[in-house]
Amino acid sequence: MEPVDLCDHAAALTEYWSQKTVAEANGNLFKVAKGIGATNWHTHDDQDETFLVLRGEITIQLRMGDVHLSEGDLFVVPRGVEHCPLAADEVHLLLIGPSVTSNALGGKPAWSYSKHSA
Amino acid sequence: MEPVDLCDHAAALTEYWSQKTVAEANGNLFKVAKGIGATNWHTHDDQDETFLVLRGEITIQLRMGDVHLSEGDLFVVPRGVEHCPLAADEVHLLLIGPSVTSNALGGKPAWSYSKHSA
Repeated sequence: MEPVDLCDHAAALTEYWSQKTVAEANGNLFKVAKGIGATNWHTHDDQDETFLVLRGEITIQLRMGDVHLSEGDLFVVPRGVEHCPLAADEVHLLLIGPSVTSNALGGKPAWSYSKHSA
Repeated sequence: MEPVDLCDHAAALTEYWSQKTVAEANGNLFKVAKGIGATNWHTHDDQDETFLVLRGEITIQLRMGDVHLSEGDLFVVPRGVEHCPLAADEVHLLLIGPSVTSNALGGKPAWSYSKHSA
């Protein structure tokens, strides 16, 4: 059994706002992602979405106000709460939840499918 | 809603191998802990236990061999797998699972109840 180097996995991603599952436990997936700019506003009605910042900073925009996260911060977006992550610079994330949410309905913007990291 | 600074929460702990729940999502708890030395060998039959190293290093001793974790590494000890975490120096952890496991049956050594961090 091998440890999962989260920063290495996140750095190796080539597409923004896509999630790569790196581990699973107790019905939850551990997924790395990199982001820049904003996703679309969206809601997950079936699951809470946990953000843990591995590198950089991100603002979780909520209709009730913004939540700013720095490296080492964890934040849970409860199910049903509309949100729109926004990163001025590239951010690397660990996302935790029972399934992958990075589809079009999950907020993934159209441009992110073709934009690759430098 | 506020972000959870995992490193701050871990640093504020005063007892080794005790878990403090800092967030909850999808039936799993996010718990910070600090460790030094070894716990007892133990098994969780009811849950997988996920380790994420926030600061320092830790070796997860398994009967099949050791797994060494550095900062930013994640490792899942599957349910039913006997393990014994060992840290030469103080390590700060995020542990994820459906309940707190830091009781005597969960491997917490007797000395850790009275030993406080410098």
